[in-house]
Amino acid sequence: MRSQLIDRRDLQFLLHELLAVETLTQLPRFAEHSRETFDAAIDSALRIATERYAPHRQRSDSDEPRIEAGRVVLPPEVAPALRAFVDAGFLAATHDHEDGGMQLPRTVANACWALFKSANVATDTYATLTIGVANMVHAFGSAAQRARWLPPLLDGRHFGTMVLTEPQAGSSLAEIRASATPRADGRYIIRAQKIFITAGDHELSDNIVHLVLARLPDAPPGVKGLSLFIVPKRRDDGTPNDVALAGLIHKMGSRGTTSTMLNFGERGDCIGELLGPPHQGLACMFQMMNEARINVGISATMLAYAGYLHALAYARERMQGRATPDPRSPPVPIVRHADVRRMLLAQKVVAEGGLALCLHASLLADRAELDPDATERHQARLQLDLLTPVIKAWCSTQGVLANSLAIQVHGGYGYTREYPVEQLLRDNRLNSIHEGTDGIQALDLLGRKVGAEGGAALALLGTAMLRTVAETRALDDETLAAHATQLERAWHELAHTTATLLAALPAQPQLALANASVYLEAFGHTLVAWLWLRQAVIAQPHRNHPDDAEARFYRGKLAAARHFFSHELPRTAPQHTLLRSLDAGLVELDDTCL
Amino acid sequence: MRSQLIDRRDLQFLLHELLAVETLTQLPRFAEHSRETFDAAIDSALRIATERYAPHRQRSDSDEPRIEAGRVVLPPEVAPALRAFVDAGFLAATHDHEDGGMQLPRTVANACWALFKSANVATDTYATLTIGVANMVHAFGSAAQRARWLPPLLDGRHFGTMVLTEPQAGSSLAEIRASATPRADGRYIIRAQKIFITAGDHELSDNIVHLVLARLPDAPPGVKGLSLFIVPKRRDDGTPNDVALAGLIHKMGSRGTTSTMLNFGERGDCIGELLGPPHQGLACMFQMMNEARINVGISATMLAYAGYLHALAYARERMQGRATPDPRSPPVPIVRHADVRRMLLAQKVVAEGGLALCLHASLLADRAELDPDATERHQARLQLDLLTPVIKAWCSTQGVLANSLAIQVHGGYGYTREYPVEQLLRDNRLNSIHEGTDGIQALDLLGRKVGAEGGAALALLGTAMLRTVAETRALDDETLAAHATQLERAWHELAHTTATLLAALPAQPQLALANASVYLEAFGHTLVAWLWLRQAVIAQPHRNHPDDAEARFYRGKLAAARHFFSHELPRTAPQHTLLRSLDAGLVELDDTCL
Repeated sequence: MRSQLIDRRDLQFLLHELLAVETLTQLPRFAEHSRETFDAAIDSALRIATERYAPHRQRSDSDEPRIEAGRVVLPPEVAPALRAFVDAGFLAATHDHEDGGMQLPRTVANACWALFKSANVATDTYATLTIGVANMVHAFGSAAQRARWLPPLLDGRHFGTMVLTEPQAGSSLAEIRASATPRADGRYIIRAQKIFITAGDHELSDNIVHLVLARLPDAPPGVKGLSLFIVPKRRDDGTPNDVALAGLIHKMGSRGTTSTMLNFGERGDCIGELLGPPHQGLACMFQMMNEARINVGISATMLAYAGYLHALAYARERMQGRATPDPRSPPVPIVRHADVRRMLLAQKVVAEGGLALCLHASLLADRAELDPDATERHQARLQLDLLTPVIKAWCSTQGVLANSLAIQVHGGYGYTREYPVEQLLRDNRLNSIHEGTDGIQALDLLGRKVGAEGGAALALLGTAMLRTVAETRALDDETLAAHATQLERAWHELAHTTATLLAALPAQPQLALANASVYLEAFGHTLVAWLWLRQAVIAQPHRNHPDDAEARFYRGKLAAARHFFSHELPRTAPQHTLLRSLDAGLVELDDTCL
Repeated sequence: MRSQLIDRRDLQFLLHELLAVETLTQLPRFAEHSRETFDAAIDSALRIATERYAPHRQRSDSDEPRIEAGRVVLPPEVAPALRAFVDAGFLAATHDHEDGGMQLPRTVANACWALFKSANVATDTYATLTIGVANMVHAFGSAAQRARWLPPLLDGRHFGTMVLTEPQAGSSLAEIRASATPRADGRYIIRAQKIFITAGDHELSDNIVHLVLARLPDAPPGVKGLSLFIVPKRRDDGTPNDVALAGLIHKMGSRGTTSTMLNFGERGDCIGELLGPPHQGLACMFQMMNEARINVGISATMLAYAGYLHALAYARERMQGRATPDPRSPPVPIVRHADVRRMLLAQKVVAEGGLALCLHASLLADRAELDPDATERHQARLQLDLLTPVIKAWCSTQGVLANSLAIQVHGGYGYTREYPVEQLLRDNRLNSIHEGTDGIQALDLLGRKVGAEGGAALALLGTAMLRTVAETRALDDETLAAHATQLERAWHELAHTTATLLAALPAQPQLALANASVYLEAFGHTLVAWLWLRQAVIAQPHRNHPDDAEARFYRGKLAAARHFFSHELPRTAPQHTLLRSLDAGLVELDDTCL
């Protein structure tokens, strides 16, 4: 069962055959759930995404948000789509039953949310940010704050935003100048000029809850002097809270989500309340940012997935070229041409492999929170932390490349705005930039994550990979055994490269980190190779399934795995050579020569 | 001297130091030219491109062509920009003095035209097509046709188009259904439904000369039954020639160039005249297509070049992050960060390396036409034919990747439409598609070009590369000697891979050609590595030039060469492994499993 948004069979495969999410129902929190309730939630999401989100994807792009009489105007389909999302329970999907939530595992919730991103990432973003803000209030709010802010955030009366960036403070949040001055009532006067605030203004909800990073008067310089504030657009009495929309930003893609310049406290009358401890705003915000980074990975993956399905459908129906040189022989669908197949497989390995990775990480998030064993929880947390920058950056980079191939499969038609694939690329191009650029992710991975706790997370990953290698060899399948040998070698290369770079890091940090982006790409390819091998191992026994559709599904998995091992994983070899050479080119460069 | 369009010093370097274009003045055709006249033409082009083309680049994108009262409306800046281009002699740049031309070598003309592409590729396209059509009439027209059509094409009263594609005939021109029925007067009634006709309608000239592929009544099937027709928009008496604008196509980028659906002969009254011999239309058209493919490579390169210069300027002025962990230390320009330098160098090697490649090919075109030695002419032609598909596809693929990095260097700002880089990517994305998709180029390279005349062209290229290797070693510079060894190895790998694939081609064509696109990428990287080594060899003696700006220029060349050899050329190693394995994955794939 394949929609334009996802191969539903694949999602079943990933959740149940690869990740066995049903085992989560053994945890007390999910005891009332079952495979059936999980699947029902996903089917509901797929229906709403298909019926309410996808139909206005193109309009979200062509009818860009605009300001009329001081208010942001969006296409009329956006509000009812989000209402349907809220009404079906997806805003509160992971929250407690007693708070009106579905109490779903993150893995299942992310699978549901993924479908809305595939259908219309611009509209989905309003909800995704609100979910993030609700989680922040839940995690760091006082009892009073939770009572005040959680109900309207969970039922969609309030929407949320994250307010970090200023014109001079992008990748470097240390530059933030926003200030918070105490008032007598325990609240604060906020003054800030903020930019690139996604969903920063609209009329989709009766209020907007801004989570603002700002400095208290006694704040130390740098990121350790940032505190977090809840700043509503409107006060409880309905009057405006001195948050001024200074302009809308016009983007390459993702146009349906407003991107705003906001001035807080132009009249000196913007009131906010502290969320979490003073000066620890960034540490708190990292909870939301880490969630957001996984969301970016999912979003990038799902845009690649949608592009793949469009390209595949087109390649099956577009007749062009022949199987023989005889011009009288009939044209064939272009899916018969090797180069088109190459482009389709290259998209499939990113779409399905990326989704496997994102859902694997979601399962780690569930385990990190809820596993009854403290060691398991800790290990899951470590692994999730390790994978987060890879998911964010690898899926973003590879997702855009996949979208470009989707255009290419369509030929000239793909370059027109009559077909959806060029929009998918433009929408997706954002993902390498926001929530920390891909370069920032690479520094995080190599500079902080792989070395954390003596490299414990990477060691766990290696153990898991080598377990898969052993399982594969037990199958006695020649092709898969060759894949296993490739993965084993790739893992050892990665371990070796990591050891070399970590050894150099203390004394020569610039040199060790210079090619961090190359390291992240090699890391991501190795990780996804592992997930493809795991999928192949599951698929192999079913390749001759008596149900033809099933047999074809599993053979598709085997073909994609084969493609990853023939065309993708080998790219890492020269990357390791470069990395281990500690090449000084980028560090020694006199940039005045450029 | 660096504009937003090109580093003028680099262009001097490429033309005079790398390619020694001045030696062309030894040919009788260019005897009246000199380095001074060449440079004057380039300076004139740079001035007009800067003053008349660049200022409306953004408007070409935002004010898309539209139809009003049956006429195509373009931004008001387009017509005067093209008029300035024509008045300065650039339409007839390569044509004879006696025809009003500048009688410039192609190499110099392409360098001039490149600047207009960098400034505003949408506006430039109207002129580029006209130049191509004039060359076609010049090459294949009867004396009467040349007398009738050349003067207005060379002075800009008529503009031109190439009319190949039909809804069912894109990559496969064998599918063309357009018909030409003889009239009593020796002319033909044309009936055709054509799509994606670039510059197919506008009011920029008093007439439009369409070169239309169509079938005569006795035409054999396939591409050997296509003939070429001159079909003007208006007849000599000014009345319309039954060429109906059926619609404008809305594109991802390159929006300022109209892309049209045209119906020829809706009323049965569209009159055309045969150009060249019957049934040999495609063979004739290939002259224009081959020129167009070089133009696509230049265009892709120049958009990458413009993106690089914008990213570099931004990286020098944008302050973000610090050189030390102390938050009180001052922010530094982002050009200091290794990852930003990596992205800048990755663009520089494509921009300057790609331009070196395109101009090298242009010099081959001049030699193929005019070298006094017949063997030299033949060898130059062979090499040009070999390089054409590589230039078209490699520059297009790499150019878009470079533009994506230009966005990334700009961070969030690069994703907005206030900055030019996102448009450059959108404009550039066309280049992998038109004039034969990159996949078609790859089949042409591997299926036809490398094996032509017993692999003579490739052998010539190898000889030239090994000569550069020997010259490099004579310099006694350790770094360059290491580059030379890498290039030597890369060449042998390419020769070995080529031999393997050509040996398999007769018996297993599908298998041999399955990864032709991978082959083209490896080919392109090896070729550009050679051009970078040649540039480095020239730069090395001047790296301590007493003029500081000169010293920095040459060191920039050395740094870029180093980057290509550390970060780019090594990518080819796994590509050769894949290609030589004759991997059957794409051929054996059961595509119903996708």
